[in-house]
Amino acid sequence: MNESNVVEYRYEQVAAKITQLIHHGTLRPGERIPSVRRISRQEKVSVSTALQAYFLLEDRGLIEARPQSGFYVRLQSRRLPAEPRIIFPPQAATRVGIGDLVSNILKAGRNPGIVPLGMAASSPDLFPTAKLHRVLASVARREGIEVNRYDLAPGYPELRHQIARRSLDWGCSLSGDDIVVTAGCTDALNLCLRAVAGPGDVIAVESPTYFVLLMILEALQMKAIEIPTYPRDGVCLDELEAALDRRKVKACLFMPNFHNPMGSCIPDEKKKRLVDILAQREIPLIEDDIYGDVYFGAARPKVAKAFDRKGLVLLCSSFSKTLAPGHRVGWTAPGRFREQVERLKNISTAGNALLPQIMIAEFLKSGGYDHHLRNTRKGYAQQMQRISQAIARYFPEGTKVTRPAGGIVLWVELPNSVNSLDLYQRALERNISVAPGPAFSASQGYRNFIRVNCGVRWCDRIEEALIVLGRLVTELASQRPA
Amino acid sequence: MNESNVVEYRYEQVAAKITQLIHHGTLRPGERIPSVRRISRQEKVSVSTALQAYFLLEDRGLIEARPQSGFYVRLQSRRLPAEPRIIFPPQAATRVGIGDLVSNILKAGRNPGIVPLGMAASSPDLFPTAKLHRVLASVARREGIEVNRYDLAPGYPELRHQIARRSLDWGCSLSGDDIVVTAGCTDALNLCLRAVAGPGDVIAVESPTYFVLLMILEALQMKAIEIPTYPRDGVCLDELEAALDRRKVKACLFMPNFHNPMGSCIPDEKKKRLVDILAQREIPLIEDDIYGDVYFGAARPKVAKAFDRKGLVLLCSSFSKTLAPGHRVGWTAPGRFREQVERLKNISTAGNALLPQIMIAEFLKSGGYDHHLRNTRKGYAQQMQRISQAIARYFPEGTKVTRPAGGIVLWVELPNSVNSLDLYQRALERNISVAPGPAFSASQGYRNFIRVNCGVRWCDRIEEALIVLGRLVTELASQRPA
Repeated sequence: MNESNVVEYRYEQVAAKITQLIHHGTLRPGERIPSVRRISRQEKVSVSTALQAYFLLEDRGLIEARPQSGFYVRLQSRRLPAEPRIIFPPQAATRVGIGDLVSNILKAGRNPGIVPLGMAASSPDLFPTAKLHRVLASVARREGIEVNRYDLAPGYPELRHQIARRSLDWGCSLSGDDIVVTAGCTDALNLCLRAVAGPGDVIAVESPTYFVLLMILEALQMKAIEIPTYPRDGVCLDELEAALDRRKVKACLFMPNFHNPMGSCIPDEKKKRLVDILAQREIPLIEDDIYGDVYFGAARPKVAKAFDRKGLVLLCSSFSKTLAPGHRVGWTAPGRFREQVERLKNISTAGNALLPQIMIAEFLKSGGYDHHLRNTRKGYAQQMQRISQAIARYFPEGTKVTRPAGGIVLWVELPNSVNSLDLYQRALERNISVAPGPAFSASQGYRNFIRVNCGVRWCDRIEEALIVLGRLVTELASQRPA
Repeated sequence: MNESNVVEYRYEQVAAKITQLIHHGTLRPGERIPSVRRISRQEKVSVSTALQAYFLLEDRGLIEARPQSGFYVRLQSRRLPAEPRIIFPPQAATRVGIGDLVSNILKAGRNPGIVPLGMAASSPDLFPTAKLHRVLASVARREGIEVNRYDLAPGYPELRHQIARRSLDWGCSLSGDDIVVTAGCTDALNLCLRAVAGPGDVIAVESPTYFVLLMILEALQMKAIEIPTYPRDGVCLDELEAALDRRKVKACLFMPNFHNPMGSCIPDEKKKRLVDILAQREIPLIEDDIYGDVYFGAARPKVAKAFDRKGLVLLCSSFSKTLAPGHRVGWTAPGRFREQVERLKNISTAGNALLPQIMIAEFLKSGGYDHHLRNTRKGYAQQMQRISQAIARYFPEGTKVTRPAGGIVLWVELPNSVNSLDLYQRALERNISVAPGPAFSASQGYRNFIRVNCGVRWCDRIEEALIVLGRLVTELASQRPA
């Protein structure tokens, strides 16, 4: 808690200084302000702290980002739209049925002719692929035939060790033996769900939640109960407890850090309370931390697993948002369910490919990952900030947008009269993909919400797409007045 | 049919010629006979035809293989033990429960200190790994950041095209659009099962059958009904029809070519009948063809899919037995269930790693695969033949062994009084892993059977292990007379 206070102080201090410069006229409306890097050097703060300061200024409507150019003092200051409200989904456990919609969103993601604001995917140039592939080639030469064999669960020991070492950053002290390597985070989540629950069981999820989680539940014939979730600090614990009192919940499947699509991050104290509530009832928590490393602030948030005393938290993540989506390497620390997860892993895919495991282990070991992470985080933060600004500029009155402190997506509440499925269809006709709200809910709520992917590099094509989207939203809003 | 008659004629002709040389005393007991390669040149037949001839001679007890040396005229001719009999498992649908046993077999496979006759895995030096990895490095360089992205189902188009081209060899004419790439054959089988059936459904399997198939059914809460299977020509169709009459079977999960563990290969005519029987009842057939390319004869057997007119056959295979177990690349041609399989693929592992798909596509395209397959097939055939001979030599009277014409495993019936679980335990104490019969049956029959992996290169260590196994079997047989 201390550290995060200090950090807030620093970036607020930097922001205050720049605010003064603007108010005093040293920096005038329309003028370019010093680059993040320069401010970072000048004020002796990290780049991400400087960036935080700029976000704050932008949030306050004092500065704005311009494509491929930098930050400028606003001609007329305008605030970002308000944040979306919390929504209370139906309390019943629901059979999920969003398959067709999601399949179409994913298909659009494969089509290079479509502007990819739908699927939560990243521009490939955010990753240090050339470096990674040099490691790959050298490992392949060095290891020779030894890597061309089955590698069953739990996976390559050095990779598990390297992941465990990193767990100190998240408030854990895992050992390599706690880790099972998987084919990405999605694989990990599937295995963990299957390890703790079966067909017909009820799983608590946040509302809204990532549509692939809902589809996994659908495919496993599990039911979802949706817990209201705050845009800033995540799942509502009172509502969760009430739901646990009402019915038998077999497990929770939450994204405490930089939730998809909300961007919310549960504060540490609340994470601890969440874990305690579940521990009392012996309910497993499957924790999807895939965006945990994509933090925009100064410190990485802890994981809920950090407060796990009973082996009930199954932590899942991967390198797909930060390093290598094309290599399908993820992992889980499944606590007391390790044996079941390993067994399921072996009979699902006969273990993992070995070469990419060694490649990533070496990359982690060399320190390359931390270096690279700083750049990637900055890239994501800038992209998200530019897209937020564009939404503020081009979308009509009544639009609301989240303020994530990490992750790669924005959750946008449109004027109440806009049906996001209509918007989704019309946008697709114009070769723009967005993810409509109903995909994020088993009960198909969030009719007037969309999720916008910010994993893509800002460029004219993105800005033009947001202009078109804004126009479509305006049209739809005026057709049926609220 | 014509072609296979001609082939038989050729290798029988070669065998007859050598038999004459032995009977006339040109080749004398204990003498080395000409190498397979030399006979192949001399008689203008392919290496595999020559090898077939040698197998026939060996089967007839006229010649024998010696480690790292070649084939010799037997001092006293001894035939291979008889083939195992067909077993009739209970007719009830059974909940599977072999998880612990199989987990232990798989764990033993990971331990390099244990002689690996348990898991069906290959010596890494059977694969052209250096060549493959050169392709990998060149693809990684050429494609750059483009390969470091999500690649959702159905997978890399050129790989699907190359697989489809090969389908002509199996009697199919698939197009790339029929194929979905998976993380190995195990992944394909899981996806196909989940596409056609759900928890509580009854799936017909061969008896005995590959234990991982049983564990997959167990994990998916499906039930297995075991259909008696002949050691030579596969599943008994009369029994299958009777089972289908008796109860609702949701799908069949069979290995028509080089069945694991039986080695049986369903003749083409019978494959057609199998497909027709199921088509009449609209029952899907999941066809595991992972060993289809590992044929010892002159021609690759057709797949059951070749006779599929209704899109009811879901053909599954991979490159794990012939090229690259370490890279987890497999595929399925799921007929009319393609959409469901793709959807399940995307929500299970978020697609496949892209680089190994491109690597294998290029390897196939270059013709490297066919060239290499010839060597691998020969290697497997020789290993199996040597292990058969060693079993004939070192195991006690009453032992029976299969005569597979492909694949990498032998199915061994021990004297009736031997409990293979005891053998399994005692062998493991001596650092030898075998797979005990009860692992191959939901009803845990096959008490006196073991499966022996022949994927490993023949060497002194293997021979010594077989000597120890033979001694253990002899001990166990004498302890409790039949």
